[in-house]
Amino acid sequence: MKRDIEIAQAVEATTMKPINEIGAKIGLQANDLENYGQYKAKLTYNAIKQVKDKPQGKLVLVTSINPTPAGEGKSTISIGLADALNKIGQKTVIALREPSLGPVMGMKGGATGGGQAQVIPMEDINLHFTGDMHALTTANDTLAALIDNHIQQGNELNIDPRRIQWKRALDINDRALRQIVIGLGGPTSGTPRQDGFDITVASELMAILCLAEDISDLKQRIANITVAYTYDRQPVTVADLKVQGAITMLLKDALKPNLVQTLEQTPAFIHGGPFANIAHGCNSILATKMALGLGDIAVTEAGFGADLGGEKFMDIAAPAIGHTPDATIIVATVRALKYNGGVPVAELTNENLTALKKGFANLRRHIKNMQQYHVPVVVAINAFSADTAAEIKLLQDLCAELGVQAINTEVWAKGSAGGIDLAKAVTEALKQPAEFTPLYDRQDSVENKINAIVQKIYGGKHVEFSNKALQNLKLINKNQWQDLAICMAKTQYSFTDDQHVLGAPEDFTIHVREIIPKTGSGFLVVLTGSVLTMPGLPKKPAALNMDVDENGVISGLF
Amino acid sequence: MKRDIEIAQAVEATTMKPINEIGAKIGLQANDLENYGQYKAKLTYNAIKQVKDKPQGKLVLVTSINPTPAGEGKSTISIGLADALNKIGQKTVIALREPSLGPVMGMKGGATGGGQAQVIPMEDINLHFTGDMHALTTANDTLAALIDNHIQQGNELNIDPRRIQWKRALDINDRALRQIVIGLGGPTSGTPRQDGFDITVASELMAILCLAEDISDLKQRIANITVAYTYDRQPVTVADLKVQGAITMLLKDALKPNLVQTLEQTPAFIHGGPFANIAHGCNSILATKMALGLGDIAVTEAGFGADLGGEKFMDIAAPAIGHTPDATIIVATVRALKYNGGVPVAELTNENLTALKKGFANLRRHIKNMQQYHVPVVVAINAFSADTAAEIKLLQDLCAELGVQAINTEVWAKGSAGGIDLAKAVTEALKQPAEFTPLYDRQDSVENKINAIVQKIYGGKHVEFSNKALQNLKLINKNQWQDLAICMAKTQYSFTDDQHVLGAPEDFTIHVREIIPKTGSGFLVVLTGSVLTMPGLPKKPAALNMDVDENGVISGLF
Repeated sequence: MKRDIEIAQAVEATTMKPINEIGAKIGLQANDLENYGQYKAKLTYNAIKQVKDKPQGKLVLVTSINPTPAGEGKSTISIGLADALNKIGQKTVIALREPSLGPVMGMKGGATGGGQAQVIPMEDINLHFTGDMHALTTANDTLAALIDNHIQQGNELNIDPRRIQWKRALDINDRALRQIVIGLGGPTSGTPRQDGFDITVASELMAILCLAEDISDLKQRIANITVAYTYDRQPVTVADLKVQGAITMLLKDALKPNLVQTLEQTPAFIHGGPFANIAHGCNSILATKMALGLGDIAVTEAGFGADLGGEKFMDIAAPAIGHTPDATIIVATVRALKYNGGVPVAELTNENLTALKKGFANLRRHIKNMQQYHVPVVVAINAFSADTAAEIKLLQDLCAELGVQAINTEVWAKGSAGGIDLAKAVTEALKQPAEFTPLYDRQDSVENKINAIVQKIYGGKHVEFSNKALQNLKLINKNQWQDLAICMAKTQYSFTDDQHVLGAPEDFTIHVREIIPKTGSGFLVVLTGSVLTMPGLPKKPAALNMDVDENGVISGLF
Repeated sequence: MKRDIEIAQAVEATTMKPINEIGAKIGLQANDLENYGQYKAKLTYNAIKQVKDKPQGKLVLVTSINPTPAGEGKSTISIGLADALNKIGQKTVIALREPSLGPVMGMKGGATGGGQAQVIPMEDINLHFTGDMHALTTANDTLAALIDNHIQQGNELNIDPRRIQWKRALDINDRALRQIVIGLGGPTSGTPRQDGFDITVASELMAILCLAEDISDLKQRIANITVAYTYDRQPVTVADLKVQGAITMLLKDALKPNLVQTLEQTPAFIHGGPFANIAHGCNSILATKMALGLGDIAVTEAGFGADLGGEKFMDIAAPAIGHTPDATIIVATVRALKYNGGVPVAELTNENLTALKKGFANLRRHIKNMQQYHVPVVVAINAFSADTAAEIKLLQDLCAELGVQAINTEVWAKGSAGGIDLAKAVTEALKQPAEFTPLYDRQDSVENKINAIVQKIYGGKHVEFSNKALQNLKLINKNQWQDLAICMAKTQYSFTDDQHVLGAPEDFTIHVREIIPKTGSGFLVVLTGSVLTMPGLPKKPAALNMDVDENGVISGLF
């Protein structure tokens, strides 16, 4: 069986089109594009402005059940669906997140779809791409250096070094940098203090880049970031440090959406990449707006399960886009549902209707959750070769009981040809009325908003706040930040905050350990359970398999 | 008076040529170039191979006196000289280093020449450019994470966490990261140990990128890096960790030289950027080879004064290029020499022949130093408006006593028109015989090689090794690394290791505090005095003045 990178490289060598041709398919002129090599481009600010004013197409959101080691393939389905929609004559543009190098080097090895449903050039997209992640890392850490330098040079703003909220960042899985002490070595090397690195995709700058309307909005949001508190507990912002101009300058190109193509030449905007477990999990709103303005249908994806990325898309991203989804696709696999039903990975290739039915509880809850938003739901079954006809039939019947179509989809093996049925079902769904209803009212109290998510989405019963979280709440209310949106940080593997609890548990408690106000991105990050904002590498990192030959050709990238 | 960025932006808006046209001037086809926007490109590996086989032009090395707060303008002269050489009909290509964001955000605000002698697009080159620095930072820190992860996952190689030589890196001036403790927070967050960040331009990967012949050489050098020692003091290399493939992969594009243009459309390769005080201080040998293969004359620059960048070019870079300089230009200013003669900055605009004569001692030593290599020397006087005719005459007379022409040069104010005399003098110098003689024999002992540099270049008398340095020497000899080249790390402001001692001091001692074997780049870094491998930000960082407007137009970058 061919590896993803081999499939991608074969297409890259033959049918990949110059990016200007891809742009031309959706009405972009050569001078709308800033080329990064022949196959990647950023949109100019002028083009972005023009596209924002165009009439918008329909918005399709792709999300999924909780991820399992069995594999779900949300990006694969998103890409294959977009290719199939184009195949049946619907002008479709896709908007996805950029991969983070941390997981690429760690477990994943790549994050650009799979099989016959990929975005290309996959090597570039998975590695440095157009430099957006690196610009974010640099901006993040330049700001951190400016904060410590302010203290070093006299600390005019009276910043309390024990209360600096701004952490450093790298786009690397590096557990050893989670908790560190900096500023050692005497007076010329700073003030000793506790600090830590987050992965760049969990940073507030990433969230801001993904939520900003334009450069002015980006700069205003950066100015609003609370980086620290004074000794008398007043917030200190980037505006107080007077460096919003410099930090925004470092992101001026990163803010422009990147255009690439799928294996079947569907235009794809790949831009912004916040994780959905510890950040808001959706590509930039500018990328989605470009897809909406340039396509009759825009397909976008929300990270991890519908409990995380899905909820955050509905309650954080959609209001910022100003366009709520017109249809929601939930990706599931027979394998992953059997795993949810208690089958170990090694036995997933055996037919097991009982386990499938049991594990379906996970999908059922995600379907009901998404239905709460009053947007039509379709289930995409990402087909694996070991799936039996009986299993697929059972899964479709179970979905039908909820009034939802479940479409068997073979885009991994067949590309668009394997997604025609799904494309047709989505086209039908888009004809149904979508009357979006938000989950919570921003003006409600922080506790009530968190409770709404825990009870209506996770299916939990109680929320327990740690002492630290209770202190955070006081600070939030004191500073009148209570109207911000909620960005839950929770394990992606479970509806609960314990990654080992599969299926659709009930009556559980969510433990809130800390609430961090992100006044630039405009939400409160609610850390639950033991979720970490800096991942670690596994025993055998994917990096061990990677190589490049004397001509620059890569291998081992998945 | 117009700022550099205003001059650059005016040209960028009018006479800047698409990079393919610049390439065409020196015989590069469109398919030799990988475009990064319309005005920047990297050479393909295929083009690099072809150019390496071409007959080479003459090599002009530009270096200078010790830098002072008065300003010298080495890049400005390099750029203006190349423009002037083209103007008088000599096909000239330039090779320079990439700016580091640390100093750009700190003191410098930009490093792409000045006035009418700049490389453009200056905003891009000074910020993220084509991502080379970021690729290096990422590769450096991915390797660091892989080392700590190896220890975390069982430490099969028996790495002593107290003896890890590989430091983390950021392309930021951040003194608070010089000395840190990482791995705190308990068993899931690594092993606590002392660590630190260097600025990326001081990293061994930067040196390797600048010295590598091609990808295979890059990979071999990366495999050879000594990252740590075992509990029984055996070296641990990247090859032992089996990640040379992954780290090389992250640098596969960064290795390709970047092509841009000057304000007068001279082709310029801007590639690699090691500092000369703490690293080897020359752009990549690939960039210089490209300039040599594509031009009749290649102009390149060695960082800081001739005691640092100049010496390292001769003894480290030139052997790697396989082409020693055919002429050496030493840049000086009347202002800086008067400063060396004891005049405070505020009084430098007053004529002062006595101080000029006294401060000339600094230039005299640099001239004599460079003459030791038996390459013709020309002095370029970078003209400032306050220079008097008497001062320039005195300076020229003093140089004439050493048999060296000193040419008054006005490229900052007039572009190529201000550099015609210098261009003619250089053309004449290139007709003289250059019989390169290296300063030291690589097979000599480490102590003797360091002594040769201290006595023959710095003019010092003794070398004092700290106890740590003596231990380092033992380890170096034990591992048979004594034949490596020497890369001195010393303040750029003085021939001594004390930055406050100006002019041409004698009878001083150089204090060697540590010697770090860099088995990938192939040299021993000799840390002297209190030189730091991570700079700090000043009280008023340049970042405070930077901004970007709603169309992405930058200000304050200068």
